[in-house]
Parts: sequence; C-alpha cells; structure tokens
Amino acid sequence: MLVIISRDDLADRQGVVFMSQGRPDHSMQDSQHISSAFAQDLSDLRMDLVRLSMLATRQLSASLRAMSDFQSGQIDQLIQQDAELDKLQELIDEKVISIITMRAPRADNLRLVITAARIASDLERIGDYARNIAKRTSAVMNDNAEINLPWDRLIEIGTLVTGMIDDVVDAYQQGDIDAAQAIRNSDIHVDKLNTSFIQETIDLMESNKLSAIVGTHLIFMSKNLERIGDYTTSIAEQVHFIVTGEALGGTRPKADKSSQIS
Amino acid sequence: MLVIISRDDLADRQGVVFMSQGRPDHSMQDSQHISSAFAQDLSDLRMDLVRLSMLATRQLSASLRAMSDFQSGQIDQLIQQDAELDKLQELIDEKVISIITMRAPRADNLRLVITAARIASDLERIGDYARNIAKRTSAVMNDNAEINLPWDRLIEIGTLVTGMIDDVVDAYQQGDIDAAQAIRNSDIHVDKLNTSFIQETIDLMESNKLSAIVGTHLIFMSKNLERIGDYTTSIAEQVHFIVTGEALGGTRPKADKSSQIS
Repeated sequence: MLVIISRDDLADRQGVVFMSQGRPDHSMQDSQHISSAFAQDLSDLRMDLVRLSMLATRQLSASLRAMSDFQSGQIDQLIQQDAELDKLQELIDEKVISIITMRAPRADNLRLVITAARIASDLERIGDYARNIAKRTSAVMNDNAEINLPWDRLIEIGTLVTGMIDDVVDAYQQGDIDAAQAIRNSDIHVDKLNTSFIQETIDLMESNKLSAIVGTHLIFMSKNLERIGDYTTSIAEQVHFIVTGEALGGTRPKADKSSQIS
Repeated sequence: MLVIISRDDLADRQGVVFMSQGRPDHSMQDSQHISSAFAQDLSDLRMDLVRLSMLATRQLSASLRAMSDFQSGQIDQLIQQDAELDKLQELIDEKVISIITMRAPRADNLRLVITAARIASDLERIGDYARNIAKRTSAVMNDNAEINLPWDRLIEIGTLVTGMIDDVVDAYQQGDIDAAQAIRNSDIHVDKLNTSFIQETIDLMESNKLSAIVGTHLIFMSKNLERIGDYTTSIAEQVHFIVTGEALGGTRPKADKSSQIS
C-alpha cells in the first residue's frame, strides 16, 4: 500500500480538502495519495475482514467436527456464536459508509472499500451455512446416533472448502490474482463431489438403505458445503477486481449437475 | 428527490468542488444539495434496479408457469435469459463505482448508491434460483410427465414470493418503510409453507409414494423459493436503511424449521 503524506493530510487537519471532481486523470487511476489516517482506516477494514473470515472458518470447522465427535452443547455454542459474525458484518458495513463519506476514496482504494462490504456479506453467509449444517447434524445425530452414515464424505468436501477459504483470505491479503484464479478453478472439485454425493444418497434412499428424512438432511448438508464453495469463489472474484479493476473474465468452470439428476 | 441547482453544479462545470471533509453537519445528514447531472445519475440507477427486478420476476414467473404448462423450449429460453440479469447487474456495479468517484455522494444519496449494488446482487441471485427451479422442473417433467405431483403447492409458494418482490420494488420506489417492514414480516408465511411442504414430501418418500429423486427435486424447488423470500426480505431491509440510515431493528420473524425436521 502506497502511503504518502500528501496535501490531503494537511487538508485533513483543517477539515477541508480540495478535490478534483472531473474524471480522475491517469495518475489517479491506479493509486491515490492518501493521508496516514486514511491508510489506517483501510488497514483496520482489512483486519476486520480477516477477523470475520476467521470467525466463519471457526464455525465451519466446528460444524465438521460435530460430524465425527458429536456433542450437543458444542452445537448450541456454535449456533450462538453466529451473532458475532452478524455484528462484525454490521460494523464493517458502517465503516464502509464512514470511509467513503470521510475519505472520498478513489480507484483501487475505492474498490477495496466497496468490495469489503461484499466480502463481509459472503463471509456472513458462509457462517449461516455452517450453522445450518450444524443444526442438521444435530437433528440426524439425536435420532440416528447408532447408524453408520457417510460423514467422512461430507467431512472431505468440508475440508476442501475450508482450505479454499484459507487460501482466498491469503490471496486477499497478498493481492494475489493468480491464487484467486486457482481458487475459482478449484471450486469445480467441490461441485463434482457434491453432485456425486447427492446422486449416491438418492440411490441409498431409493433402495431403502437410508430413510428419506436422514437422506434429505445429508443432501442439504452437501449442498450447503457446495454453496460455501460458491461464496468463496465470489470472494476470489472480488480479489481479482480489487487488484485489477476488471471483473474476472471467462466463464467460471462449473460442475454442479445436481439440479439435472434424473 | 430534492434537486437544487447549488454551488456544486457551478463547481461541476469548472471541474472543481469545495467539499467539507469533516463529519457532515446536521443539515447534510438528511439531504445533500446535488447537481442536476448527479440527480440524473441517481434516477438512472434506480431505473436500472427496477428493470433488473422486472427481469428477475419474469424469470420466476416463467419457472412457475413451466410447472403447470411445461414446454422444454420455454425452459431453454429462461436459462439463456439469465445472462441478461448478469449483464445488468455488472452495469449497475460499474455505475455505483462511477457515481461514487465522480459525484462524491453523501448521507442518503450515498446510502442509495451503496445499497443499489447490494439489491442488484440480491435480484441477480433471485434470478439464479428461478433458473435452478426451472432446471429441476425440466428434470422431473422429462422423466415423470404422467405422475400427479404437488405442483400447485409450489406454485402457491412461488406466487406468494412473486407478490413480495413486486411489493418490495414498490416500497423501494416510494421509500415506504412501513411497507418494507410488512414485507419482512410476511416472509414468515413463506417459511411455514416451505417447512410443511418439505415435511410432507419426506413423508411421501418414506411411504414410497414418491421416488427419492423426484422428492429431492421438489424439496430443493421449495427451498429455492424460500431462499428467494429471504433475498426479498434482505431488499426490504435495504429500503429501510436507505430511508432511515438505520438497520431494520428487532429480530426478523423466522419459521423455516426445515433444518430441524426429525
């Protein structure tokens, strides 16, 4: 991040800034000379997002752990913790409005601020899906603790997705567009695992080896993990946009065929 | 919309504006004196959003129509039309960045611009869910055209949700926070219909009156409609935020118990 103590900083202290209102000239396109207070705001915003990503992955990891080591108290705790994510997302939203109002960011700084709200929304929804997975695990475990269910398959998809979230947060912090592209491409593995898991679960239900109620919960858990992969891909696309100012081109590789199973 | 030809407008012509950089004083909190070109930008942005909402409801209506009057060509057309929504959403995103850069909106104008990107994202996802419903209808119809399926129940939920979208677009255009609150409250009916539809579909699968594959598609279609209700509620919350500057308080009434069915 280029930080130059500019005339903006001096103007800041006087509460007045002189700002060009026309199209930004070329030198403004890629980086804006910003005050140290403004740089601190941006740095804080990035840290808030990283913290939100840690809360989201904590929720996801806890929901996966419940599949192999179920304790109902743990699930209750996980459900309660969701409020922390909601609160932090609201805080990020407020900061975005405040930074735009107070600092008039431009070019790459504006992209960083605008996308912060979107990434926060994606992370909050990842947390929601993790909570939903935990609720379903709880519903299944409470009634069917003795049955041998394909938890390992769900944990496999969940572990893959957790790794993608970790990678996308690294890519965000490093501004690494190659990593962002790789994460977007890797979502196809999640789609494939999800489609085959759903297909096999339906087969087990058809042959009465699995009840409709348990099968439905398992299918939704897999689908939730696939949705978490989609949100992670969306974050990867935001990283590309922050760095380049362009939408990540090309058709996103997709292999979620679960809506066409017949 | 208050439009006053202010010193900003004069400054605009010179390419320079004098702008207070400190906290906005109270008179700036509720309305910003804006140039006529700026007012036109805001008006265009609102019209783009209304157009996007019309595309989204067109997709949803077509997906519901396919349930009672199935024609596979119609489904293909619906799937192709999704690209229009994606394109318009991208255009709105670009305009948001451009307006913030060029016009430095504040207070209610800034809220209008920032939320435009979020509402566009919600509407685009509503379109995605409508497309997914159509794909599933197609998968079921192609294999089970002769079977009597509970399409009427899905059409009932879909019609309720379509009405909510129409209402929320009206509330957006009128800045009607009471209507926004009413829409948010009405989502509970969608949640209840969805939960009972899923419960009954599982029962039909358990008693082998419905195959697991068809049951799974029907359950996902109902869940997709419930998700569309959630996105519509999110738009209602944005309307409240645009008008008041405050998040819509209180816990949102929820009755989606489908993750706890056991």
